[in-house]
Amino acid sequence: MSDSWNITQTAFRREDAGKYETIFALANGHLGIRGTVDDGRSVYHSGTFLNGFYDSEPIVYGEHAYGYADRRQRMLNVTDGTALDLWVGNDPFDLSTGTLEDFERRLDLREGVLRARYAWRSPSGVLVRLESARVVPLSRRATAALRWRIELPEEQATITVISGINSRVKADEAGADPRVGAALTRNALTKPKVEMTRDIAVLRHTTRHTRFRLVCAMGHTIETENHWFQTAERQVNDLRHRFVVTAEAGVPVTVEKFLAYEHTRDARRVKLAALAKRAVGNARQVGFDALAAEQREYLHGFWETADVTIEGDRAVQESIRFNLFHVLQAAGRDGHTNVGAKGLTGEGYEGHYFWDTEIYSLPIFSYLVPETARKLLEYRHSTLPRARLRARHLHHRGALYPWRTINGDEASAYFPAGTAQYHINADIFFAARRYALAAGDTAFLTEQLAEIAVETARFWLSLGAHIPGRGFCINGVTGPDEYTAIVNNNVFTNVMARDNLLYAADLVERVERDHPEAWARLQAALAEAVDGDGAIAADEPAAWRRAGEEMVIPYDRDRGLYPQDDSFFQKAVWDFENTPRENYPLLLHYHPLTIYRHQVLKQPDLVMALFLQGAFFRADAVRRGEPAEEIIRRNFAYYDGITTGDSSLAPCVQSIVAAETGDIDLAYRYFVKTVRMDLDDINGNVKDGIHAAAMAGTWLSVVFGFGGFRDFGGHLSFAPSLPDGWTRLRFRLRVAGGTLTVDVHPDHCDYLFARSDDDPTPVVVHHRGTSVELVPGETVSVAGPVPGASR
Amino acid sequence: MSDSWNITQTAFRREDAGKYETIFALANGHLGIRGTVDDGRSVYHSGTFLNGFYDSEPIVYGEHAYGYADRRQRMLNVTDGTALDLWVGNDPFDLSTGTLEDFERRLDLREGVLRARYAWRSPSGVLVRLESARVVPLSRRATAALRWRIELPEEQATITVISGINSRVKADEAGADPRVGAALTRNALTKPKVEMTRDIAVLRHTTRHTRFRLVCAMGHTIETENHWFQTAERQVNDLRHRFVVTAEAGVPVTVEKFLAYEHTRDARRVKLAALAKRAVGNARQVGFDALAAEQREYLHGFWETADVTIEGDRAVQESIRFNLFHVLQAAGRDGHTNVGAKGLTGEGYEGHYFWDTEIYSLPIFSYLVPETARKLLEYRHSTLPRARLRARHLHHRGALYPWRTINGDEASAYFPAGTAQYHINADIFFAARRYALAAGDTAFLTEQLAEIAVETARFWLSLGAHIPGRGFCINGVTGPDEYTAIVNNNVFTNVMARDNLLYAADLVERVERDHPEAWARLQAALAEAVDGDGAIAADEPAAWRRAGEEMVIPYDRDRGLYPQDDSFFQKAVWDFENTPRENYPLLLHYHPLTIYRHQVLKQPDLVMALFLQGAFFRADAVRRGEPAEEIIRRNFAYYDGITTGDSSLAPCVQSIVAAETGDIDLAYRYFVKTVRMDLDDINGNVKDGIHAAAMAGTWLSVVFGFGGFRDFGGHLSFAPSLPDGWTRLRFRLRVAGGTLTVDVHPDHCDYLFARSDDDPTPVVVHHRGTSVELVPGETVSVAGPVPGASR
Repeated sequence: MSDSWNITQTAFRREDAGKYETIFALANGHLGIRGTVDDGRSVYHSGTFLNGFYDSEPIVYGEHAYGYADRRQRMLNVTDGTALDLWVGNDPFDLSTGTLEDFERRLDLREGVLRARYAWRSPSGVLVRLESARVVPLSRRATAALRWRIELPEEQATITVISGINSRVKADEAGADPRVGAALTRNALTKPKVEMTRDIAVLRHTTRHTRFRLVCAMGHTIETENHWFQTAERQVNDLRHRFVVTAEAGVPVTVEKFLAYEHTRDARRVKLAALAKRAVGNARQVGFDALAAEQREYLHGFWETADVTIEGDRAVQESIRFNLFHVLQAAGRDGHTNVGAKGLTGEGYEGHYFWDTEIYSLPIFSYLVPETARKLLEYRHSTLPRARLRARHLHHRGALYPWRTINGDEASAYFPAGTAQYHINADIFFAARRYALAAGDTAFLTEQLAEIAVETARFWLSLGAHIPGRGFCINGVTGPDEYTAIVNNNVFTNVMARDNLLYAADLVERVERDHPEAWARLQAALAEAVDGDGAIAADEPAAWRRAGEEMVIPYDRDRGLYPQDDSFFQKAVWDFENTPRENYPLLLHYHPLTIYRHQVLKQPDLVMALFLQGAFFRADAVRRGEPAEEIIRRNFAYYDGITTGDSSLAPCVQSIVAAETGDIDLAYRYFVKTVRMDLDDINGNVKDGIHAAAMAGTWLSVVFGFGGFRDFGGHLSFAPSLPDGWTRLRFRLRVAGGTLTVDVHPDHCDYLFARSDDDPTPVVVHHRGTSVELVPGETVSVAGPVPGASR
Repeated sequence: MSDSWNITQTAFRREDAGKYETIFALANGHLGIRGTVDDGRSVYHSGTFLNGFYDSEPIVYGEHAYGYADRRQRMLNVTDGTALDLWVGNDPFDLSTGTLEDFERRLDLREGVLRARYAWRSPSGVLVRLESARVVPLSRRATAALRWRIELPEEQATITVISGINSRVKADEAGADPRVGAALTRNALTKPKVEMTRDIAVLRHTTRHTRFRLVCAMGHTIETENHWFQTAERQVNDLRHRFVVTAEAGVPVTVEKFLAYEHTRDARRVKLAALAKRAVGNARQVGFDALAAEQREYLHGFWETADVTIEGDRAVQESIRFNLFHVLQAAGRDGHTNVGAKGLTGEGYEGHYFWDTEIYSLPIFSYLVPETARKLLEYRHSTLPRARLRARHLHHRGALYPWRTINGDEASAYFPAGTAQYHINADIFFAARRYALAAGDTAFLTEQLAEIAVETARFWLSLGAHIPGRGFCINGVTGPDEYTAIVNNNVFTNVMARDNLLYAADLVERVERDHPEAWARLQAALAEAVDGDGAIAADEPAAWRRAGEEMVIPYDRDRGLYPQDDSFFQKAVWDFENTPRENYPLLLHYHPLTIYRHQVLKQPDLVMALFLQGAFFRADAVRRGEPAEEIIRRNFAYYDGITTGDSSLAPCVQSIVAAETGDIDLAYRYFVKTVRMDLDDINGNVKDGIHAAAMAGTWLSVVFGFGGFRDFGGHLSFAPSLPDGWTRLRFRLRVAGGTLTVDVHPDHCDYLFARSDDDPTPVVVHHRGTSVELVPGETVSVAGPVPGASR
């Protein structure tokens, strides 16, 4: 296999430290550790993060008003267990001193272990060979393991390995850039309680305001033929094991370090310390190599379905795998956590969960790792009580999900681009339905999804209003495009709400008719919900249906364009010509009112609607007697021309719809902006963490864009294309109870549907409008040139 | 004369303390002192304020963005010189102890002196008679004087009078109510330097952030036949003179206290202490009675023009005078200060200046005290450099005045109801033109006003845009109604901007043609302005005129209504029926988005436009061939029905336009809500300070409402009416170089125009459409029943 599985750093430069800490960050959805180099000194920002573990403080507003989010939540940078303090004689191992004669770090994406190799000559002239390896097993909860193998090839010396856990907990400083997020004003962890023996060290913390508890435990093994002895050292926030080795030339010493993090967000007296010590003990017992093997096995299972093969474009092949790996690492999978905007690789956006999860990441999990998709959605379902309370506080019915949150409470301090993005409700509903249908998870469909659908439909009905002469209007909202705020009848919001309302009505009637037990449980849950509106009344589904059917979707017949909202075409187009390059992103150089006043987009809005609700727009065009393809092409062209792409969420969507309109070159140009965004540090801010949604968007671009995959109501269709130079594109999807392989070549496409059981029922897919019946296990080849290929 | 000149408090109740401190506050535009009772102990909030004297701090935002106001400004509560610490034997004079056998406080509005009388029996049984008087002379800058006359009618005792100056500087606590404003986090005055002799005490401060300097000086005189001696005491923030008197029964002691406050906002080494000591010395030399006589004389001159006579309605007669007195007290008159939202009686709204000055207070000064009107406008002119800088920072041309400010910099921390209220620019222009025309101040018209007109016109041109198929649109603004935000083509904003643009073009051409010297000065000022756009280019006036002429004023022909903005009628009407009374004001009980989403008004917006730009709306109706009276009546009726009046600025405007439509009963109902708002503490928050704009609005209601006065382009017209019970309404206006008296009786109206010179040129006014020629000195009586009267 090619090298496109390996991410490699071959030169050490201090100024790259932050970037590689992010790129080489390891995480398993619970625990994330930035990929710091092993000297513990050449560090940009060391970070250890636990998904969902945060502190909070009141938000200070210049002017306060009713209903504002009242508390900030911030994912904490917790106890650091990675720092190695290595001494060779009297010289500290510090890459900024001495001479680095050999250096390489490498992350094999099939293995999931970060391996590094250093040949460093100390200022005193002693050559040290260090090999390190680090893993955060995806198969375990919150365990990490590190291994250092140290050898002095030329001469003997005393080696001191000081390895500790340290809770200095420095938070990133926030500046005027709203994208970084504000820092908590004080240290968020209280002074720890400590426990220390030769075998194990334990730090216990409580968060200052949320009163969450955290225990970090550490243990070591050492293996060497050299003479050595060990001591334990203890300071307030810092526990260390010290190994002093009289190292003979050529006689290596290997230290393995095992870390466990246990935490709890509720007041129950869970014995966290016992759990953490047991986890460390277990890991130490099996040893580093066994953990690495576990990791490789886990990843083997993942790649079996998830791998995307792209031939003819090495850079893309490498990065699509890199991106998928990081998306996998970022996702919470315990039903209580989700996907932070920067995963578990940085504190940007305060570790909050946004619509990014549902719109960007969830399709990947829904089609590749459905069990994780379910867990991510269970998180949303579990926060329904808070969403109900929020709706009630805002005088609405049903439930309103937060725009940004960790614990389920709204934490957005700027409502025009926070609370006003009510579309989050429909986004969650939409993603949950997609998961349920793709995975065939009837239990989820008839219970959790049904409850979400009911509460979001109730919300929409109470948010909008039937306006005489117009229909059902949803006024005073902000769509996905944050360069336009507080508008009426944003098309994206309205088509998504429409879908939400109509489907909720259908689903509820179906559950009542076909699933009496689920119906009883649903009605009981709704009836008993605190702050709820009770069980579904007989007339509710009809009211949702009527609102959905009468939903206003503004359309400008003269121009053949959907305005982004009622007033969008009444605004002047932004003066792009006279905007200097350095004034992008606009949000850092223009007042929000200046931006809001113009036709200018931060990210696709109507174009996002074309992607997610394509079936609606096609039907709408047909209803008006207009050519659907042409309408989609014209709307895409118009909006694409006024989109800045100041959001990292933009290019993948632009790429998908460009591909749909047949402009494969343009689709590819957008695709390359996003596919290597983090690997090539295109925005210059990878040091702060990954762009999780943009990474996930890469896969969407490949599968929904070049693959042309659509899945409207269980109707699976493909319209593959190959960008210039690509000779093959292969990807898999878990659908219809099996695995579908789509293998695109310049002159034909192969479809293979496989099932693990013996069910011979064929599956029908559509290839550019032609239906193709797939008998399990039999490859069907559709001949004919693929657009974009072989020019 | 009746008692309607005297505001009297006859009963002492601790819970009324705050209310009466505001009602009895004395101020002279520079210095304001709350009307605390003389025991210095039964105090709600003692306050001493200097107009324009503030400290500032960075504003903290939940999420920051480009162009946000960066520093908070807060008027400071400065050194207190009012507190009397009086002891009779060993008992402190404390109204919450002993027995209060007689009590009265009285403010004679013709005299401007607060006088109090106490007969208090101490806990030890000693009867004390205390008479106090307090004055803040309107004729002086920052001097105050207090007098205490103490007598023991029954028995002798030792009396100790401790009188000091004290800079404990406690700021009001801010809560969640955005109307109160946030407190600075720390004491804003640095530790003082002190100077202390038997004669005089001086405290010198510097503000913490703005580094302004303040000196407060105090001196006393004592007059008594009793034996006495004096000591001086000094603590860090507190300087005291102590007078110990062996008081014989029936032998009074009189202590007079003189205070002077001098401050500077710039770094020049002004000898503030010398100035303050000289002011104290001078005041002490002339004595309290002479200062009181000065005050009476000043007020005599004021009332000669300003008094409004209303017969048949005692409560209104009393309060209209009370309100005028407070408006007079509130207004800065040095060209560097303005009118705070609560005058100099409280720290509410942080002492900021709003449009309140121009729209509510300035008409009073323009028609009654034009020299003060000019000073208030000179303040705005003096802040043009900051307004230019603000416009530049927001990528606009011209100048943008701040929505709220002390020093001329924007200090609004919520841009949807701050910066978005661009109409402030037109409001200032409008008021400045009205002053210049009413006062015939050609110098101001051709220079300061011309410069303001040019810079505001330039701003409008750069804010709006010619939208194909529509005209000149001004998008993304908030009008006066803060329950609707960030909308397109707000009618109020657009008609005001239109007027601004058209008049600027006319004025500039007129100045160039008729006033060559003023033109040269204007062009030089514009050419040299830092952050400016240079001298007026040849094509600029035409561009302003075109934008004004093509200004979009949305109108709904079907309904015969102007929508408040483009989208207003697309919104659902607020559900008033199901809104419980306790949920008003809505802003404290509903999220801004909920409010913005509905047709519901905090205060008149379109109706305010009907008032200020009545000539436009009448012409617009005629142009469309519709009956103007009917259009105004219909629009008023519609908007009045959806106005909550959650702003204290609302009822006076509703009253004026109700009167214009002929509904005198309704006009009166609104009028009484506003006329006694503070005297009767209708909103329950008088303790925090006066509602300066609402008080000024009272006069507007009388003169523009019941008087039916309008002044469009020098065309003076009246349409008088008399509410039920009123038998006479008389008011005066300084117009056309003289004084016009309008004297309304149930069956006739008398008009008298008087001039101090011998110019016999008659003035023409219009009485309900009929022109009336007024020869100076000759009363013209127009017979005929006055609407509303004698039912």
